[in-house]
Amino acid sequence: MHFTSEQRLDDGVLEREFTLGEIPGTLWTPESADPAPLVLMSHNNGLPKADPRLVARARYTAAHGYAVATIDAAGCGDRPRSAADEQARADLRRAMQAGEPVDEIFESLIGPLVENAVPEWRATLDALLEQPGIGGPVGYSGGWTALGIRLAVAEPRIAAAGFFAGGFVPRAQREEARQVTVPLLFLLQWDDEGNPRQRALDLFDAFGSKEKTLHANLGGHTGTPWFELEDGCRFLDRHLK
Amino acid sequence: MHFTSEQRLDDGVLEREFTLGEIPGTLWTPESADPAPLVLMSHNNGLPKADPRLVARARYTAAHGYAVATIDAAGCGDRPRSAADEQARADLRRAMQAGEPVDEIFESLIGPLVENAVPEWRATLDALLEQPGIGGPVGYSGGWTALGIRLAVAEPRIAAAGFFAGGFVPRAQREEARQVTVPLLFLLQWDDEGNPRQRALDLFDAFGSKEKTLHANLGGHTGTPWFELEDGCRFLDRHLK
Repeated sequence: MHFTSEQRLDDGVLEREFTLGEIPGTLWTPESADPAPLVLMSHNNGLPKADPRLVARARYTAAHGYAVATIDAAGCGDRPRSAADEQARADLRRAMQAGEPVDEIFESLIGPLVENAVPEWRATLDALLEQPGIGGPVGYSGGWTALGIRLAVAEPRIAAAGFFAGGFVPRAQREEARQVTVPLLFLLQWDDEGNPRQRALDLFDAFGSKEKTLHANLGGHTGTPWFELEDGCRFLDRHLK
Repeated sequence: MHFTSEQRLDDGVLEREFTLGEIPGTLWTPESADPAPLVLMSHNNGLPKADPRLVARARYTAAHGYAVATIDAAGCGDRPRSAADEQARADLRRAMQAGEPVDEIFESLIGPLVENAVPEWRATLDALLEQPGIGGPVGYSGGWTALGIRLAVAEPRIAAAGFFAGGFVPRAQREEARQVTVPLLFLLQWDDEGNPRQRALDLFDAFGSKEKTLHANLGGHTGTPWFELEDGCRFLDRHLK
């Protein structure tokens, strides 16, 4: 893990860019010298790690006392795109503009993206836990629910997970949701146009966790109210601190 | 309003029994001398004001800086029961034991109970706001959702409301839910046996409020986790303080 740049933010949080082999990532750490619990934070389906909403969430969570890390998935953000990546995205855009069903396109696009991302996130987790000032237990906080489900099942170090319901979850992850057993906070935007509400409620119902909480708020995909940031940190506090 | 007894609790909260005409009530006030915002707190469908779960919720909320008040409904708790009250309750018990449908019995029992309770709660609100140390704005926090809907529509002084989905809501209140416009926190127990989940989700959907949040937790009717008490106070803080 090589740090390539750093800046100290107003609230004392240190924001560092890093690379781990081909993987570009960002790490935010709080000012305190104590080992901070680690939160892996993702954005939905290959949105770039530099997305302002992800960055705002990460900075807030770090200022709250967590080490927060994110990486770009293969073919996303700062990473080179293959011709196949470009083609799949073009197919998706065309289908959406034409008002055609997109479930199968999403399935073929997101399914492999999740499978490929998991070993990269686990390698990043290994490397992060060797850094000074970062300790366990580990939380997952993600716009990318499908990745979170896969990681929560495959990675025993993850002790709690916050998911956002507003994104496509492939069949494989919908099926393995019942194998997720860590405490869960599931965020739903009640009027999220592109994401059927019933599918999200069914997914919440399917999780195997004994402690799971759904927070639903009025409004569309990007309308999550600010107080859910606070609630998300308190959820992590209950399980990681 | 006559105070008939008082005791100072360990956390400094003053707990006082009162009567207002025929209505028996309890008032909890925090130690601070500043006027505290008032929270009207109810328990479901005529459960007594001395119920331990209601008392625990009231004491916690008062220690958090609120004046909290509750009253017994006519025919409930410490108040005399009419022969008709006893008969209706006996009918309900018999039908439930026999596994018969109870919606229509609930409708005939709870509908009038709500209608009769509203003027009593409003009279209590008038009297409470004349007490020293109690100020506006006013919140409603209720196991008794049907009463809360009626009050939130009829009583302009109510500025925010927390409802619990686990109880029977008569047709009239299900219909006027869309007239509720105050910020809302709606608590749902995901596996509440006697209360169909879909009916609760439909009710949440129906509320006219622009800011409304659903918190759903795994478990049965009485299984609401303790952290929802904290979340409930923070919801009130956002709107009443």
